[in-house]
Amino acid sequence: MTMLEFFWDVGSPYSYLAATQLPRLGERTGATLRYRPLLLGGVFKAVGNQPPAALGVKQRYLHTDLARWRDTYEVPMRLPGEVPFPINTLLPMRVAMAAELAGQGERMCHALFAAYWGHGRDVSTTEELTRVIESLGLEPAELLAAAATPQVKDALRASTDEAVARGAFGAPTFFIGEDMYFGNDRLGFIEARLMA
Amino acid sequence: MTMLEFFWDVGSPYSYLAATQLPRLGERTGATLRYRPLLLGGVFKAVGNQPPAALGVKQRYLHTDLARWRDTYEVPMRLPGEVPFPINTLLPMRVAMAAELAGQGERMCHALFAAYWGHGRDVSTTEELTRVIESLGLEPAELLAAAATPQVKDALRASTDEAVARGAFGAPTFFIGEDMYFGNDRLGFIEARLMA
Repeated sequence: MTMLEFFWDVGSPYSYLAATQLPRLGERTGATLRYRPLLLGGVFKAVGNQPPAALGVKQRYLHTDLARWRDTYEVPMRLPGEVPFPINTLLPMRVAMAAELAGQGERMCHALFAAYWGHGRDVSTTEELTRVIESLGLEPAELLAAAATPQVKDALRASTDEAVARGAFGAPTFFIGEDMYFGNDRLGFIEARLMA
Repeated sequence: MTMLEFFWDVGSPYSYLAATQLPRLGERTGATLRYRPLLLGGVFKAVGNQPPAALGVKQRYLHTDLARWRDTYEVPMRLPGEVPFPINTLLPMRVAMAAELAGQGERMCHALFAAYWGHGRDVSTTEELTRVIESLGLEPAELLAAAATPQVKDALRASTDEAVARGAFGAPTFFIGEDMYFGNDRLGFIEARLMA
């Protein structure tokens, strides 16, 4: 069975868009999905890259483009400016890694994305994270404590470093083996490859 | 009849890929295509943007991605590194503008792209430009002289300035009215819009 790795950060709007498509893509292709939290700020820092809207002139177009994808996919989505943006994703991504290590990574990924981009809730706060964790039937105190352990911090750092070492410079970044695909807009290539 | 404007520079590999698709897209949608030469270096300078491969880590992926588009479209294409890249596109884009002003803009666009990306010929040189112009049954001396006139130089500058004023930050950039689309990978959005 082919494995599709999905490196994501909850702060990345194109990662959200891609995530909304992944379960059905997995069903259509039979690929095994592996959800891999990373820290996008760490990737940018490591490779000297910048967020897509860092250049002022790109910001307006970014909104237009995101709205086009949202309408095409027919998914609920707040745009940057309608949500606090950017947010510090260190805490939510540590929670995501803690969930991953507890076998709940996929559910946590979708729950965090839905809370932030779908509902506009600031998932960088402990309050919102508590609600997200509860919505999954998990124990907030337990998961938040796990997120603060060296084991989880190290695992998130290692995941970020691994993505960079394999060629990533942004998110979402996908791998099929060592073949890398960058961006929600490359899901078509990914699906074609998985069906080949 | 809806107009689709296509701002292009011969040095841009994604502009080439898009150009290979435009005639059939025009047929399918009934849109009128308007080929608009610009100077991509002028756009980057005006908005403070950089070429996609300016960041070293992106360069390897750029080649992979271009090869995927080439294979998907089934078009001949040399990759950067297999052609002299980047080249100074000032002269070929002035020739393109001279051709445009002579009512031969669309044919010149496709001929320049085919020579450079299709056949790997360095179209920044007068020699190769002469061949391209001859292949269209046009008069090289005449067109090269026109390319050196203030009228053509000003027209290329004005086209570049106009694209920037309307929001462009790279190439290829498309407009349907004032709705901007950036990149070969947004042709799907463009076609959906033209068919709506």
